[in-house]
Amino acid sequence: MKNEQLTVHALSEIDNLKVHGRTTGLLSPLTLFWTGSGIELNVKGSELWIEVEAQYDQYEAWISILINNVPISRLMLTEGRHWICVFRGMNDQHIKNVRIVKDVQPMSEDAHCCLQIHAVKCDGQLLPVEDKPYKIEFIGDSITSGEGIIGAKSEEDWIPMWFSAIHNYTRITADALNAEYRVIAQSGWGVLTSWDNKPHANIPAYYEQVCGVLTGEANESLGAFDENNFAAWQPDVVVVNLGTNDNGAFYSPEWKDETTGRIYKQRLYDDGSYNEEDLKAFEVAAENFLIKLRIYNRNAHIVWAYGMIGIPMMPAIYRAVDSYVQKTGDNKVSVLQLPNMTEDTVGSRSHPGALAHERTADELSRYIRELLSL
Amino acid sequence: MKNEQLTVHALSEIDNLKVHGRTTGLLSPLTLFWTGSGIELNVKGSELWIEVEAQYDQYEAWISILINNVPISRLMLTEGRHWICVFRGMNDQHIKNVRIVKDVQPMSEDAHCCLQIHAVKCDGQLLPVEDKPYKIEFIGDSITSGEGIIGAKSEEDWIPMWFSAIHNYTRITADALNAEYRVIAQSGWGVLTSWDNKPHANIPAYYEQVCGVLTGEANESLGAFDENNFAAWQPDVVVVNLGTNDNGAFYSPEWKDETTGRIYKQRLYDDGSYNEEDLKAFEVAAENFLIKLRIYNRNAHIVWAYGMIGIPMMPAIYRAVDSYVQKTGDNKVSVLQLPNMTEDTVGSRSHPGALAHERTADELSRYIRELLSL
Amino acid sequence: MKNEQLTVHALSEIDNLKVHGRTTGLLSPLTLFWTGSGIELNVKGSELWIEVEAQYDQYEAWISILINNVPISRLMLTEGRHWICVFRGMNDQHIKNVRIVKDVQPMSEDAHCCLQIHAVKCDGQLLPVEDKPYKIEFIGDSITSGEGIIGAKSEEDWIPMWFSAIHNYTRITADALNAEYRVIAQSGWGVLTSWDNKPHANIPAYYEQVCGVLTGEANESLGAFDENNFAAWQPDVVVVNLGTNDNGAFYSPEWKDETTGRIYKQRLYDDGSYNEEDLKAFEVAAENFLIKLRIYNRNAHIVWAYGMIGIPMMPAIYRAVDSYVQKTGDNKVSVLQLPNMTEDTVGSRSHPGALAHERTADELSRYIRELLSL
Amino acid sequence: MKNEQLTVHALSEIDNLKVHGRTTGLLSPLTLFWTGSGIELNVKGSELWIEVEAQYDQYEAWISILINNVPISRLMLTEGRHWICVFRGMNDQHIKNVRIVKDVQPMSEDAHCCLQIHAVKCDGQLLPVEDKPYKIEFIGDSITSGEGIIGAKSEEDWIPMWFSAIHNYTRITADALNAEYRVIAQSGWGVLTSWDNKPHANIPAYYEQVCGVLTGEANESLGAFDENNFAAWQPDVVVVNLGTNDNGAFYSPEWKDETTGRIYKQRLYDDGSYNEEDLKAFEVAAENFLIKLRIYNRNAHIVWAYGMIGIPMMPAIYRAVDSYVQKTGDNKVSVLQLPNMTEDTVGSRSHPGALAHERTADELSRYIRELLSL
Repeated sequence: MKNEQLTVHALSEIDNLKVHGRTTGLLSPLTLFWTGSGIELNVKGSELWIEVEAQYDQYEAWISILINNVPISRLMLTEGRHWICVFRGMNDQHIKNVRIVKDVQPMSEDAHCCLQIHAVKCDGQLLPVEDKPYKIEFIGDSITSGEGIIGAKSEEDWIPMWFSAIHNYTRITADALNAEYRVIAQSGWGVLTSWDNKPHANIPAYYEQVCGVLTGEANESLGAFDENNFAAWQPDVVVVNLGTNDNGAFYSPEWKDETTGRIYKQRLYDDGSYNEEDLKAFEVAAENFLIKLRIYNRNAHIVWAYGMIGIPMMPAIYRAVDSYVQKTGDNKVSVLQLPNMTEDTVGSRSHPGALAHERTADELSRYIRELLSL
Repeated sequence: MKNEQLTVHALSEIDNLKVHGRTTGLLSPLTLFWTGSGIELNVKGSELWIEVEAQYDQYEAWISILINNVPISRLMLTEGRHWICVFRGMNDQHIKNVRIVKDVQPMSEDAHCCLQIHAVKCDGQLLPVEDKPYKIEFIGDSITSGEGIIGAKSEEDWIPMWFSAIHNYTRITADALNAEYRVIAQSGWGVLTSWDNKPHANIPAYYEQVCGVLTGEANESLGAFDENNFAAWQPDVVVVNLGTNDNGAFYSPEWKDETTGRIYKQRLYDDGSYNEEDLKAFEVAAENFLIKLRIYNRNAHIVWAYGMIGIPMMPAIYRAVDSYVQKTGDNKVSVLQLPNMTEDTVGSRSHPGALAHERTADELSRYIRELLSL
Repeated sequence: MKNEQLTVHALSEIDNLKVHGRTTGLLSPLTLFWTGSGIELNVKGSELWIEVEAQYDQYEAWISILINNVPISRLMLTEGRHWICVFRGMNDQHIKNVRIVKDVQPMSEDAHCCLQIHAVKCDGQLLPVEDKPYKIEFIGDSITSGEGIIGAKSEEDWIPMWFSAIHNYTRITADALNAEYRVIAQSGWGVLTSWDNKPHANIPAYYEQVCGVLTGEANESLGAFDENNFAAWQPDVVVVNLGTNDNGAFYSPEWKDETTGRIYKQRLYDDGSYNEEDLKAFEVAAENFLIKLRIYNRNAHIVWAYGMIGIPMMPAIYRAVDSYVQKTGDNKVSVLQLPNMTEDTVGSRSHPGALAHERTADELSRYIRELLSL
Repeated sequence: MKNEQLTVHALSEIDNLKVHGRTTGLLSPLTLFWTGSGIELNVKGSELWIEVEAQYDQYEAWISILINNVPISRLMLTEGRHWICVFRGMNDQHIKNVRIVKDVQPMSEDAHCCLQIHAVKCDGQLLPVEDKPYKIEFIGDSITSGEGIIGAKSEEDWIPMWFSAIHNYTRITADALNAEYRVIAQSGWGVLTSWDNKPHANIPAYYEQVCGVLTGEANESLGAFDENNFAAWQPDVVVVNLGTNDNGAFYSPEWKDETTGRIYKQRLYDDGSYNEEDLKAFEVAAENFLIKLRIYNRNAHIVWAYGMIGIPMMPAIYRAVDSYVQKTGDNKVSVLQLPNMTEDTVGSRSHPGALAHERTADELSRYIRELLSL
């Protein structure tokens, strides 16, 4: 039976729309760049649909749907514009909180990868969504992108299917603290270089932009490279979970810039220890990132949270943070070791699984609760 | 980028198709009646799609997708015929085990509710799926249908969204035992009557049919009322999880057959105890069901497994089983109390949640392992 | 440094003494018969000692000490009269709740086994111990005696060291319900016979006596065979955890009464099933035990709780309870299946370990909470 | 029945005696100084006793007894010389592994506190105890002394009863790694000062001695202040769990040396941050301790493991370790953050409880396993 009461609302017309994640502010349509970004609605009605559009050369889109904060659907979005039914047949007098969440990170290797929301369709009212009392920003790599949370341990393909924004420590931590959150994360990237020594594949260089890790004209015209509006969303806590790929660079082959011919490589000494100069470069990069983070986040507690895949860079991270604190006197910056994943908590692609993310969220939320004196 | 290598295969053309659940045997298309039913494929290729078709007046369809035995997607299927992408971009040399599973029970109240699979589309080979060494049939009510496994505790709407075949004790038990399984279950139904005293809403009356709990000409023409082909699939174990609604009938209003004017009601005495005659009727129905089960399942261990929402009918169940065993000498029939759900394990709609199903699967699989001397 | 403030108080002189477990009422000294029996004191003072006396031919005594409901010591008591220091050096202004608990069952095979408490010695006041709102009596065999809770899995000796009253489901259940409790339990005994077919080794025959499972003149003169004062302690719940040894009798050699020459044996048919007549004898014994229990416990809920080492006798137990309820109309009698021990929860001597007892206490306390409408 | 076969063996006469913990080497009697120290025997016999002697002004002794690596008894030892029965009535053909373990730290405030073992008595043979493949030394404060593992959360008295060497992360970690272990730990002490600013109450100053934290002539004559025989026991891993009290000193009143009039105080700035100079003093002390540790433990991995009661000193610890590593090139020194105790895992006296110690052992043993490439 067709529901004749459904009315289409372009996102730009919805007063009570709540948008999560860094975006350009444009709603016609809304482009979702980062994992964990999405929209939130309070719907008093029996039925709800959303109109989404996915484009890509290689990496399709995935979204999760949460109703009253519980995941109820997760699906691949193939190319094109689709109307997706979120719920139907529900009591039209009850208010349903709905979140549509991008489950996958921005794809820096696929210049045509894009997920947008155009409109919603429902037979009732869209009521205000209350603001949460805290805001947290998470900055990271594949761990924070949720790579490997989904799928069998044996999975090895690098595909969007294995990513999750939902069973991710970012969401679980934010939920535990009743906080809004945003995620800036890119698999393989680091503070100084990527795991394979690419010097541009570092998060700090693109931090000011809405989603600077992307490339291509299409993304440019979507506003991905615009300066982010930091004033509009000032976090109480910034969590930086970087360093794992910077360590990887020491163990990976060099990367050659084909344009300049220059070769990039984080080196080890013959005895297997880190080359001092290269390690120092990482520390300087980390310290500089803290300086940049403080510029854009004036009052936030900054927590360098590291350790879900081992702690080899921890001494260097402590040195970097220490140096920053000594020089600036800024004592709202600290380091937290996260629980290492174990055989029991590993997911697919040798990355932390859902249990590892739960354990991290447990420790991290406890730590942040103390920082915020909750 | 479009994959030009994709080839469509009608289900009926696939040699290595494995169908789960009671069906008519027809594959053009394959109608999925029961929760937990579906298809299984071993795919050597990079991309796979399925063509599904959903029809309904009221209750839409939901499916889950498992890859290498891990759930990776769960989605609503709205009316019409849809191509759904299962995976893409995977290593085409690896074999992926894929299961497409109906997440919702047959809807006896919606005569036009129907889920079918027409075809698959892929760019590789469909290889044989190995048979599992054991077969289990689960017979039950809303608990076994997985009502309430999904969703917030506060959810009250009776809609397909809250059902799950995946986080269900049936699947978890079967997996633990490396067994194939089928589910015959219907929310609200009992051994003698439904929770609201409807005399026809009893599972035993329809056991012989492929899916006799359905109604309407459409279902008839699909073969739902045909005799099931028991010879083709003989279970090693039959689990009967019924009795919860038969207890409910004692506490619910009478039901009047508007045609005959006859009134049906399981009665309580004034002191709150069960009316002896009515309780006896339940016991007779239970005993007769065992007789019927044995007719169709000659060698199976039959386990009456009960207790996930309390154990008030347990004495009557024991009496019924006892009486059956005494009369027949058939000692492959036993009773097992399942763990009661608790505040910590309840799901939505006051039904057992995912944790309750896990605990039940734990106990039940241990019990069955002993029965089968594993 | 010797504490010069210590004063000796014979138990009989202590107004605020609380005695746990079935005893004769005599306090000069107090004889502790059953596992879980003991004394409880509220001590406002810095130091406390107790004077205990142990006698035995074979089986030494063990006690546990709890302070503020936490076990802090467990020790063997060898032959003779000993002063044991319970605590010293504590803040003399705080009130400490102290329990001295017999960790071992009465030893029916050792007529000279005896544990007594003579006196306490302290430097402060003994204050009133508040009564708990509920009373529970547990009746059982080795499981309820706590055999195997302590010790490595590989232990096989039948010695007191492996028994525990503390990590026992009886104590954990009572604590969870804020109830006082008593234990009547004897390893190897059953409802009808012991595991090895001894007809006298049945709990029901001795239920009326303070501790009739004992033998010998010494025990007689201590009052072990006196009629228990049921009026003085009426439980709200009686838990019967028997049947495991009655099942064992079917699989054990016959027992010959050397005096009469009569042979006792619970028989199996050739196909391995229970001999009907012998199983019936068990059922009659169980039913008669319920009749006796009701005589002495007029208002208690009686729960036959069974299953920690398998459930083979469950049908017979259900029949017995059913028959009793049918005949008497007494509907405060019910059956509960307890969680079976697993490889992970087994203790020493192939008996349930501490984890198995915790799981049972979890289920049992939830069930009793409902019975008592808590 | 008295066992007539018992023979007394002075410790010094036992060939197969295994002594755990730092001792002087003397066996007539054996003085046990440190928590976790004790003796280990493999006994083929039915009965075993030990002769112990306790002396003290204030703090009585406590021991735990383990049979086949499972704790079976824990008891207070009051003043004087006592024969304690360890087991009796066991199968005399089986070999029992027995450990007698001191459950309490050396008491630096009680110059007459002393626990000694004189002899054992048994009716069988004492067989060789196999060496374990690894050796671990743990150095710490109250956390490592196991303060607060036993007892109710509300307990506040500072008494030996609340200490445990058994449910301690030291034992659990060593067991998980199949390692021998020793503990050097003292409640309230630090790297630089105690929690209350006493400059002498630092572990490093006494590290070379058998048990230099003690005082008095009695201890001197027992050899407590002798140089430890490091050559005889070289650990594979040294775990340093210090820093918690050094942090406390910043928040505690000053300490005045009454002899010199000098005042000691770790200071905070007005804004609540650490005084730079005082924090630096801690770092220097930590670095110097590493230098000393390396002198005495040539090949050990040294792990500074910290965090069970918060991580405020972690940056300083990292700086100290870093500085040491930079200067020496010794890269077998690392830092590990331990899991913080939580409301669920706290024990008595606001210290980590048994669950907190288990979690720490879990993380620490995993970390050490990697260090040792196990």
